[in-house]
Amino acid sequence: MDESEDVPKDFIELKSEKLSIDEVSELVISPYCGAVSLFIGLWKNFELALLWTALQFASESGISCLSVFPSSLCCCSSSLPSMVPITEASVIIAVSSPHRAESLEAVMYCINTLKASVPIWKKEIYEDEYSWKENKECFWANSEK
Amino acid sequence: MDESEDVPKDFIELKSEKLSIDEVSELVISPYCGAVSLFIGLWKNFELALLWTALQFASESGISCLSVFPSSLCCCSSSLPSMVPITEASVIIAVSSPHRAESLEAVMYCINTLKASVPIWKKEIYEDEYSWKENKECFWANSEK
Repeated sequence: MDESEDVPKDFIELKSEKLSIDEVSELVISPYCGAVSLFIGLWKNFELALLWTALQFASESGISCLSVFPSSLCCCSSSLPSMVPITEASVIIAVSSPHRAESLEAVMYCINTLKASVPIWKKEIYEDEYSWKENKECFWANSEK
Repeated sequence: MDESEDVPKDFIELKSEKLSIDEVSELVISPYCGAVSLFIGLWKNFELALLWTALQFASESGISCLSVFPSSLCCCSSSLPSMVPITEASVIIAVSSPHRAESLEAVMYCINTLKASVPIWKKEIYEDEYSWKENKECFWANSEK
């Protein structure tokens, strides 16, 4: 492969199967990149179990978030719109770059921008009750209140 | 599991088999941590193939590097001391934390400290020749010159 063919690429995928960290990192690996940085978001153990519903993915926000770093080879983000067991990944972001600083910064930027742009709702289910919680970092969801 | 049992843990492993990103991330996942951040170092395609030899791992430096963040659940770093094909991981660092900022910062700190503390040598093999290259970021290796 010629280095000129190795242009930056973005992947965005929403899927209902369990997310694989190995699979996502494979998407961004390139012979011209010496660094891959990843962020994985998982559900913590609040009470019993947690259920994601009504995950509204503002895709235009996601795409702009993922395209800001042209020096990164590519970036991948996935989310499960239904049941996500505790300790299982609900979102994975991966970025590769020739040297490490760019991919480390890009991953931090991508997850911060995703949280700021996408109104993720979660339904926390306890033994006898449930409650809805909104992603408090989403600036435009909060501004509509 | 009671939350009090979920104390911070460090894992450091050097192995000769291929590193698995899924396996390393499994080590740090906990029901009390909503974030896992990873850094993977790989060989880029310089000419033809690259061979690591004489990887001298200053374990005391590595351990101090990995123990600085007590709020992180644990941290894992592995390196192959022999042949590492291009695009295959030579080092993986993984850190989990309840919220994302801590694990993202800890991964950046760990890889920077590892590069600054460990005199990694690599032998770059081309078609008819080879050259030795030293990790230029290692402060004490450079100070001995």
